[in-house]
Amino acid sequence: MTRWKPDAAGRLIKAAIMLFDRQGYEETTVTEIAESAGLTKRTFFRHFADKREVLFQGSEELERVWVDGVASAPPDASALEAVMAGLGPVTAMFTERHPFAQIRTRIVAANPELQERELIKLQTLAAAIAAALRARGVPDDAAVLAAQTGVTVFHVAFARWVAQDDPDAFQRLTQESLEQLRSVTAT
Amino acid sequence: MTRWKPDAAGRLIKAAIMLFDRQGYEETTVTEIAESAGLTKRTFFRHFADKREVLFQGSEELERVWVDGVASAPPDASALEAVMAGLGPVTAMFTERHPFAQIRTRIVAANPELQERELIKLQTLAAAIAAALRARGVPDDAAVLAAQTGVTVFHVAFARWVAQDDPDAFQRLTQESLEQLRSVTAT
Repeated sequence: MTRWKPDAAGRLIKAAIMLFDRQGYEETTVTEIAESAGLTKRTFFRHFADKREVLFQGSEELERVWVDGVASAPPDASALEAVMAGLGPVTAMFTERHPFAQIRTRIVAANPELQERELIKLQTLAAAIAAALRARGVPDDAAVLAAQTGVTVFHVAFARWVAQDDPDAFQRLTQESLEQLRSVTAT
Repeated sequence: MTRWKPDAAGRLIKAAIMLFDRQGYEETTVTEIAESAGLTKRTFFRHFADKREVLFQGSEELERVWVDGVASAPPDASALEAVMAGLGPVTAMFTERHPFAQIRTRIVAANPELQERELIKLQTLAAAIAAALRARGVPDDAAVLAAQTGVTVFHVAFARWVAQDDPDAFQRLTQESLEQLRSVTAT
């Protein structure tokens, strides 16, 4: 008798994060994660290639949401305006994940391999945003510069967001980070 | 009878680059690299942890030169001015390596693992520059933003520099890339 399990991926992510945080990332096995979520190892591998990917599924969603936002920005938006427009839906997606993001940041910070993975995901994100800008007719170099700037602004804002306790602060911190970047690059 | 071999590391790098380019990175062994340089495998491993590191020794030198340049920028330089001041000595170091940089770029572009390594080195570089800025008294967020902006400007300029044939163009391309970033981020 099979029973339908709602949102197996979500339960696995939650279970993994809790175990990584409590007993360490290295020390946690896929079997433990699956058991803790009340699921089988087989179900785990239907959703994730390995335990590392549990921590990075959000990065893929972030990329999808941000890229869609860039694509649907007003046609007359500048390259950077389009990039920042894409951050609107990202903000909405992030707010409710604040406690999760705080724990996840702690786990990633404690593990060099995860830090490397995080940097690569950020660069993949920048490349995807640059591609979305090129699709809007932005020339290549400007697309790369605007996308990379947006990701830098995001990266700094995200670090500040998880370091404080107001889940709703993300949009304000993004805006502050952009203003600060502008003041840093001003002649 | 031992004979003194001048610049073994340099010879190994040159031999490796030529072999990687001709027969592929994956297909080339450390033994072949050492033989082609007229050296032993043991000498190779005195200089490099593995064949991948042959391609990234320049990244470490780049970081050292750039960070030193930031540290010795005029005390009244702004964060970004200090970052760009550090690019002066980097330019001097790069000019004579243009043919090498062109071939190396081709090798890295053909291999996802090397591309990942390259991105991580760029992020390590940005972190080192940010640390050099903090040591100058720049607050944390501004240091991260200025360092990341400098690395982005460098990254775009470097891609354009290897895509064209004038070894002396690096400084001009860096300046153009900075101007373009300023125009992208301007309100």
